[in-house]
Amino acid sequence: MAEPTALAGTLTDAGHELIQRVYFEDTDFSGRVYHARYLYFMERGRSDYMRLLGVHHQELAAEGLAFVVRRMAIDFVRAAAIDDLLTIRSRMLEIGGARLVLGQEVRRGGEVLVTADVTVALIGRSGRASRLPDEVREAFRPSPL
Amino acid sequence: MAEPTALAGTLTDAGHELIQRVYFEDTDFSGRVYHARYLYFMERGRSDYMRLLGVHHQELAAEGLAFVVRRMAIDFVRAAAIDDLLTIRSRMLEIGGARLVLGQEVRRGGEVLVTADVTVALIGRSGRASRLPDEVREAFRPSPL
Amino acid sequence: MAEPTALAGTLTDAGHELIQRVYFEDTDFSGRVYHARYLYFMERGRSDYMRLLGVHHQELAAEGLAFVVRRMAIDFVRAAAIDDLLTIRSRMLEIGGARLVLGQEVRRGGEVLVTADVTVALIGRSGRASRLPDEVREAFRPSPL
Amino acid sequence: MAEPTALAGTLTDAGHELIQRVYFEDTDFSGRVYHARYLYFMERGRSDYMRLLGVHHQELAAEGLAFVVRRMAIDFVRAAAIDDLLTIRSRMLEIGGARLVLGQEVRRGGEVLVTADVTVALIGRSGRASRLPDEVREAFRPSPL
Repeated sequence: MAEPTALAGTLTDAGHELIQRVYFEDTDFSGRVYHARYLYFMERGRSDYMRLLGVHHQELAAEGLAFVVRRMAIDFVRAAAIDDLLTIRSRMLEIGGARLVLGQEVRRGGEVLVTADVTVALIGRSGRASRLPDEVREAFRPSPL
Repeated sequence: MAEPTALAGTLTDAGHELIQRVYFEDTDFSGRVYHARYLYFMERGRSDYMRLLGVHHQELAAEGLAFVVRRMAIDFVRAAAIDDLLTIRSRMLEIGGARLVLGQEVRRGGEVLVTADVTVALIGRSGRASRLPDEVREAFRPSPL
Repeated sequence: MAEPTALAGTLTDAGHELIQRVYFEDTDFSGRVYHARYLYFMERGRSDYMRLLGVHHQELAAEGLAFVVRRMAIDFVRAAAIDDLLTIRSRMLEIGGARLVLGQEVRRGGEVLVTADVTVALIGRSGRASRLPDEVREAFRPSPL
Repeated sequence: MAEPTALAGTLTDAGHELIQRVYFEDTDFSGRVYHARYLYFMERGRSDYMRLLGVHHQELAAEGLAFVVRRMAIDFVRAAAIDDLLTIRSRMLEIGGARLVLGQEVRRGGEVLVTADVTVALIGRSGRASRLPDEVREAFRPSPL
């Protein structure tokens, strides 16, 4: 049985890497991956990055908090196809008081397929932005050299 | 601007009809609609059928109730393609104390593409089955001739 | 039965408008619409805008051509919820030799939920960009006052 | 980096097992996994089962062949939630001339969440059923004791 930990990808010096397969569901009739599906792959990467840093959606939800995407700038460079193995790379670009900016890439081996800058914020039950808990901010802070 | 009511389809003598378009998102690299997408179309049909009968997801949710699918038996007869207009037909087959059984069809003009028997139940916050409120049972009951 | 034409939205002075319902499938466990689903709504808007201008995916595909998204810059301002009716507004910002830039908005009544600038290109079987056929360029050109 | 092979699950005495994570995308506003998403998980299981037996979608497609789902009978017993790790078990129930019947389960640890009998057929470019190639039939045939 595959080791569950591997399913959450790996922490790297730069941030996080996750490998995901392209299945039927991800493709469209053009024969390639539907553009919006790359956002799903990138969200899986962000979730597993947080997971390995000890930040869990269910625990946040229990406190009435959830991460939401505020802004994305995405370049779709090359298309993936069925059966491809994709590597989703994520790294932290900015850690603000109430938001995080990540740089993400979807690669197939050495080829860059999609790049994105993604701004996420933490919101409370009211829908208003909430200050990032210190443990979240610390979790994402690069370790000193 | 399209009349919002039309977006929820129409009540018929037999039950309910909803017309939906096949978009890029619904297709896969085989060139046809991905099999699980027909379940999305059928769920839209059931939601709009209930909507026109006065049963709203948000109101149920406010009482801690939600409809869940318990069982489906589905025949995929013919495949739809991009740009097709599909008609989703829904009718009530059984109204039990805690569950409803619907018969649903996805058609393209005169052709039947998919047929399904769908059993749905109402569950409460605990995840346990909840008795259908009388107004829901009444809403679905065929009017006397 | 709903008039099929209404399903493709309407051409406006500014471009195109399409009304779509938020169903179960569009939401996630946060209770709101999953961020990537707005890209599906916007793609439906672009497809129907082209449809009403006489540009059809299946006809392009028969010539080995398909529109692909090259770039998106998206602001997620407010979140939609189950049962909401969304209006997707699309207008042409630039018509280049091989690409189109559209401005799109997802609104709920008077509220802007999401805005995006979307660059699409036409590609051939080789995956290379293809010059937009004159009829496509003409179709999108604003009529003179 | 996770071993790509692990991503395709493992062959077992009974058939195949694949572990998959529940992400945001799989849930709906009820807080649980959207019912049709289990069909995506089961399709991933079938695809990877075939992959490990040497049957590849892209190779089939190059010969104009594709597997399609003809019939499903599904019981939704318990619901999964965000962050859950699901095990998709697949085994061959029948190997016919032009169709396969698989038994599939989605489990969370020791709990059965969903069970399904799934009939798939191979179709050619015309959309007509095609006889299963001997190598496909052989691949799925249980090895003699």
